[in-house]
Amino acid sequence: MSRPPGPSPDPTDLPDLAAIRRAAERIAPHVHRTPVVTSATLDRLTGARLWFLCENFQRGGAFKVRGATNAVLSLAEEVARRGVATHSSGNHGAALALAARLRGVPAWVVMPEDAPRVKREAVAGYGAEVVPCGPTAADREAAARRVVEETGATLVHPYDDRRVIAGQGTALLDLLAAVPDLDAVVVPVGGGGLASGTALAAAEAAPRLRVIGAEPAAADDAARSLAAGQRLGHPPGPVATVADGLKAPLSERTFQALQSHLHRLVTVGEGDIVAAMRLVWERMKLVVEPSASVVVAALLATDLVAALGIPEPRIGVILSGGNVDLDRLPWG
Amino acid sequence: MSRPPGPSPDPTDLPDLAAIRRAAERIAPHVHRTPVVTSATLDRLTGARLWFLCENFQRGGAFKVRGATNAVLSLAEEVARRGVATHSSGNHGAALALAARLRGVPAWVVMPEDAPRVKREAVAGYGAEVVPCGPTAADREAAARRVVEETGATLVHPYDDRRVIAGQGTALLDLLAAVPDLDAVVVPVGGGGLASGTALAAAEAAPRLRVIGAEPAAADDAARSLAAGQRLGHPPGPVATVADGLKAPLSERTFQALQSHLHRLVTVGEGDIVAAMRLVWERMKLVVEPSASVVVAALLATDLVAALGIPEPRIGVILSGGNVDLDRLPWG
Repeated sequence: MSRPPGPSPDPTDLPDLAAIRRAAERIAPHVHRTPVVTSATLDRLTGARLWFLCENFQRGGAFKVRGATNAVLSLAEEVARRGVATHSSGNHGAALALAARLRGVPAWVVMPEDAPRVKREAVAGYGAEVVPCGPTAADREAAARRVVEETGATLVHPYDDRRVIAGQGTALLDLLAAVPDLDAVVVPVGGGGLASGTALAAAEAAPRLRVIGAEPAAADDAARSLAAGQRLGHPPGPVATVADGLKAPLSERTFQALQSHLHRLVTVGEGDIVAAMRLVWERMKLVVEPSASVVVAALLATDLVAALGIPEPRIGVILSGGNVDLDRLPWG
Repeated sequence: MSRPPGPSPDPTDLPDLAAIRRAAERIAPHVHRTPVVTSATLDRLTGARLWFLCENFQRGGAFKVRGATNAVLSLAEEVARRGVATHSSGNHGAALALAARLRGVPAWVVMPEDAPRVKREAVAGYGAEVVPCGPTAADREAAARRVVEETGATLVHPYDDRRVIAGQGTALLDLLAAVPDLDAVVVPVGGGGLASGTALAAAEAAPRLRVIGAEPAAADDAARSLAAGQRLGHPPGPVATVADGLKAPLSERTFQALQSHLHRLVTVGEGDIVAAMRLVWERMKLVVEPSASVVVAALLATDLVAALGIPEPRIGVILSGGNVDLDRLPWG
C-alpha cells in the first residue's frame, strides 16, 4: 500500500505573506467578509480602543473555514476527488465539511464523542461523515489515520498544515484592511494555526504590529513551550478548560512560527474566560464561544493593555467563533 | 396643586413623516446607526430574502433609545430641568435613563419587581432612580403618577406619546436607507410604539411597503382589537408570555395608527418564540431577546411569507432588542 497523502514533508514549512495573499484571493469568493465592531463598554473597561473582527459570523461560525477552504482548493483534482479527512474538536471539522461540499468531494471528520452537540450537528449538516473517537489526541489521530488508509482521503490537519495556516492568516489581512493603524492584535492560541497565520502575516504586512496570543492557563502548553524555548506538550490526562477549541497542543511548525514572531503570550483562568464570555453576550449582544472569549479575558484580566506602554492603545481582537451548545452554557 | 405635565392633550395625535424625519435629525448624534445583516440559513428556512436591522446593538440594547431620546430632547429647557419619569418593562426605562443623562436631567423609572435583572441593572447603571412596583399595568401607572406628583418630572410614556412614536419610526428610515426596495417589513407589537412609528413612516415614505406586526398569542390584544375594529385590552390577570417587552396593551393612539396603516398582524405561540430565539442565537450568533424573536417566529411559523404572494419576497426585519437575563434563558 502506498504512503497516504499527508501534510507537506517538511514539518516546519511555513507560509509567507505572498502565500497568505494568494490564500486570500483563493478563498474570497467562498468566505464572508466579516464585520468589524466596536464597544464603548469594552473600551472603557480595558482602557484601550478595540476593534473586534467578528469571525463568529463567518461561514460555519468560526474562522476555521478560511484555512480549510484554502487547503481543499489547493489540492490537485485527482487528489481532491478521493476526499478529505480530519480530526477536530469541531470548528475545523465543520469548516472542512463546508470546503469539501464547495468542491464537491467527500469528507470524513473524526470528532470526540463529548464534542458540543451543535458542532457535531453542523458537521453532519454540511454533508460530512462524522467518525466518533475517544477524548485524547492519540485517539483522534489514530482514528484519522484509519480513515485515510481506508479511503485514500487527504488528511487536512486542523493547524499543522502550511495551507491551513496561510488561510487563517487572511483574517488579519481583513482586519488591517478595515483598521490599518493598529498597535497590537490579540488572538487565541490552541494548536496555533490562527496565531501562526496572524503572526506570519503581520511580520511582513505590518512589522510594527504586536501580535499577542492568549490561551487558557489550563491548556498552557504554548506559554510553557515559549518560556522553555522548546516545544512541550500537555501533561498526561485530559485537558480541562471550558475553551474546548483550544485544547490541542502546538505542533513543531506552529511552535516555530510563534517563537519567531509572537510579541507575547498571556494565560487566563477559567473564571475569567467565563466572565468575559458573559460580558460579550450581555453588553455586545454577540454569541461567542469560550475559545473566542479567551482574548477578551486577556484584555480584561491581565496586564496586556498596560504593558503595551501606549495610552489608549489601538488593539485588534479576533473573535474566533460562536459555536456554543446553548444547553450547556458555562454559567448554567 | 397644578395638573402634572403629561402626554399631549389629544389622545390620538400622531406624528407624520416630517415629524419622524425631524426626530431622525435630532437623535442622529446620540444613537447608533445599527448594522443590517443577512442570513443564508434564515433565507432558506423562510423562502424570503431577509434584511435584519440589529437594534439589539443599539445604545441601551434596544430601539427604545430612539423614542426616548427624541422625547427628552424635545422638552423645553425649564420642563426638562425637573426631570423625566416613566413606567416600563425595562428597555424604555433604560432608554429614558440614557436620554436623561445625555441631557443632564434626573430620571425616575418605575419597574415591576420581576423585571429581568439585566434590565434593572442597566437602568440604575445609566444613572436613573429605579422605583419598584407591582406586576399589573395599574400598579405601574399609579406608581408613575406618584413620582410625577412628587417631583414635577415629565412623564414620558413608553409608547402613548407622539414624540416617542416619531422616534421609533426612525428605525424604518435607517432600514430603508440600507435596503430601499423592500416588499414588507415585520415589527413586534406590544404597546404599539414601534409598529405605529414604522407604519406611519412607511405610509408616506414607502406607500407600497407592507408593514406587518407580530405579537405573542398570549398577549394578543392588538390582534383582537384590529379584528373587532375597536380597542380591547388584555383579559384580567397577568399576561403570560416569554416576550416580556410585549405585555403592554395598545393605547387609543397606537390602535388608531395600526388600524389605519398596518397591512396585517400575526400572532405566534410561546414555543415558536423560544425556538426562533434559539435559532437566531445558534445560527446568526446574535443575542436577541424574546420580544425581538417574535418577528422571526412569525416568519417561520405563520403563513406570513406565502401570503405576500411574491416569490422570494424582500422582507425587512427589525430585531428590536437584545436585553436578556442570561441566568433565566427560556430553554434553560
